[in-house]
Amino acid sequence: MSKIKTNAIIGQSGGPTSTINSSLVGLLRGLDGNVAKVFGMQNGISGLLKNEIVELNYLCKDSSVLSLLRDTPGAFLGSCRMRLPNDLDSLVYKEIFGRLDQYDIKYFFYVGGNDSMDTVAKLSAYAKKMSIDVSIIGVPKTVDNDLVLTDHTPGYGSCAKYIATSVCELWQDVSSYDLPSVTIVEVMGRDTGWLGCACALPMLRLGYGCSLVYLPEGDFSRERFLADVEKELSSGKPILVGVCEGINLDNSAIERDAFGHSALAGVGKALENAVKKELKCKVRSIELNLPQRCASHLASLTDLLESEEIGKASAELALEGKSGKMSAFVRRVGEYGVDIICVDAYLVANKIKRVPKEFINEEGNFVTDKCEKYLAPLILGERKIQLDGGLPRHLRLR
Amino acid sequence: MSKIKTNAIIGQSGGPTSTINSSLVGLLRGLDGNVAKVFGMQNGISGLLKNEIVELNYLCKDSSVLSLLRDTPGAFLGSCRMRLPNDLDSLVYKEIFGRLDQYDIKYFFYVGGNDSMDTVAKLSAYAKKMSIDVSIIGVPKTVDNDLVLTDHTPGYGSCAKYIATSVCELWQDVSSYDLPSVTIVEVMGRDTGWLGCACALPMLRLGYGCSLVYLPEGDFSRERFLADVEKELSSGKPILVGVCEGINLDNSAIERDAFGHSALAGVGKALENAVKKELKCKVRSIELNLPQRCASHLASLTDLLESEEIGKASAELALEGKSGKMSAFVRRVGEYGVDIICVDAYLVANKIKRVPKEFINEEGNFVTDKCEKYLAPLILGERKIQLDGGLPRHLRLR
Repeated sequence: MSKIKTNAIIGQSGGPTSTINSSLVGLLRGLDGNVAKVFGMQNGISGLLKNEIVELNYLCKDSSVLSLLRDTPGAFLGSCRMRLPNDLDSLVYKEIFGRLDQYDIKYFFYVGGNDSMDTVAKLSAYAKKMSIDVSIIGVPKTVDNDLVLTDHTPGYGSCAKYIATSVCELWQDVSSYDLPSVTIVEVMGRDTGWLGCACALPMLRLGYGCSLVYLPEGDFSRERFLADVEKELSSGKPILVGVCEGINLDNSAIERDAFGHSALAGVGKALENAVKKELKCKVRSIELNLPQRCASHLASLTDLLESEEIGKASAELALEGKSGKMSAFVRRVGEYGVDIICVDAYLVANKIKRVPKEFINEEGNFVTDKCEKYLAPLILGERKIQLDGGLPRHLRLR
Repeated sequence: MSKIKTNAIIGQSGGPTSTINSSLVGLLRGLDGNVAKVFGMQNGISGLLKNEIVELNYLCKDSSVLSLLRDTPGAFLGSCRMRLPNDLDSLVYKEIFGRLDQYDIKYFFYVGGNDSMDTVAKLSAYAKKMSIDVSIIGVPKTVDNDLVLTDHTPGYGSCAKYIATSVCELWQDVSSYDLPSVTIVEVMGRDTGWLGCACALPMLRLGYGCSLVYLPEGDFSRERFLADVEKELSSGKPILVGVCEGINLDNSAIERDAFGHSALAGVGKALENAVKKELKCKVRSIELNLPQRCASHLASLTDLLESEEIGKASAELALEGKSGKMSAFVRRVGEYGVDIICVDAYLVANKIKRVPKEFINEEGNFVTDKCEKYLAPLILGERKIQLDGGLPRHLRLR
């Protein structure tokens, strides 16, 4: 005799963003009233396997709690980095679906990037193979903006806004001194340059900020980099340079190993040393590091609203009985806006969307107006966060 | 025949802050209508000597311009790091006062830290010696909060607010993973730990954030640091550690030279490597770097208002004929508030106010409730900055 399954469960996975919890709010709002219970996996499928499961219905009872959840960066439910095996006969699948059965789960949501869509694809394949009636739905999320089949990803706009704002402010600071100097701003982007594009936005929009930007999509050359910097410095003024952590220094004769460990995070410092050695001018590097992905006080309102909408749409997808799907944005023609469609999660899993050629200038040291047009609407709008005693208020899982 | 001198000139010096331009607004407001012309030195006395002088009266004509100036980080007039010689017979004094005479300057203002107060003290000593009728007034400014004879310095509260907010947000991010890990947050503070105190504020107020904080005032020991970290890690959870760039690693057997250059900025990285080597757990370091002193989108309203007030009060001091003085804050007893007094600039010049013993715990790895009480009011309040297309609007010198 099969039980009537009426519950939902949500997990968050991979690197957090400033708006990952807005997607959670959207899911909760979409599910509230349509399912009996909503559960959260603590730390994704890794927590699910350890039976670390919490009920979340209480969150929907109070709109001020949901509002606080929107302001909260990091993964409210906790995150994990766990990859499921390719072999669907592996015991772990039986374990996972056993756990889902135990909690009468009919709707399963996973908020994450291309690794998480791999999880969604595999779980839905297993469910289909075993004729288990559970809808497995992916909700996109990554500051890297590197998911295919969606115009952009929730979380990207806020990270881009933080970077572009920091570049504006840094420009005011470094240009306080009337001396030639180089300030290298290092942003995230292991495989793709989407966040590097954000470094360029102030210059494109306001005429100041980073005048050189290097993305992993370009062929990085030490000689060209130093020549570019030297040329910019000929003005006798301070300059800002944006670089992604993932630009390929390996064939560029830039020494990275002075820093000991592998450290993708060492690109800015390596370039700083190269400039110091070769151009002998004042130089510093600034790694924007984790704050770029968790500075929710500076989140893009557009991103927050879209992140919530795509969460809500994902809940609806599941309620319609879809499985193995991911919600995705399609940009409208004309005035900015998005429609939400659904795509197959397996088509997104493990793939990478790179910055297209037409977004990068011919010299490979800056981006184009087309790139600005793509990025500009994503950082629009601000949300007034809740504060207490001058510090942001965040929601903690109870 | 001596000319009637009726003009004022303002310079900014040393490292910029988020509120240095609010003090400029205060000066302009205090001078408007009381002097004929207000000039600005571009890049401090270094620009003055090169006759790089701009008229600023236009700024007062439009309150929206002043408002934008309040939002603008960095030194609007440009900054410099130039030290005047001790010998008052040096030609440079004659040059400076020749320039002031050329512009009919009766009121001279210098916004800066302890080095700038050295400039104020020397220029006023020279004017006195030579019976030149120019009021030389210092306006305090430094994120370091290390000036003596003032309760705190303009610029400190905003930097502290940025740091404490970042720690709150970072906590949400790093605690997304259910694994022991160490995240080291490095803040400014070459000689003093005032900004390190800000790392501790979230834990004192909210119960999460940095659980260990190391200031330059303590005797840093490698063994104690690693023992502290190991103890905190025994919870099995992520931990945050705050350190000032100026903690003394030299006698602590922490290797710094792997990073090549002297780099005070390398403390976080050096500690990261020590933790990696000895405790073999996941560890990263985050240097908050220049954004901490220029992130005006997150400035403390208390700091902004006080910075403007002390600028205005400094204008009044000069108009009263005072010279060789610096305006300073005295904290009121009871409910938070400040009165502005004037002190001798030579008593502030080149001195350093350290974090007092009673602000640091016995173990030397955190701060006390007394510290919280001192710091908490300084970060209160927010100002809604002006934005355009999602980016902050700043004023540039024309």
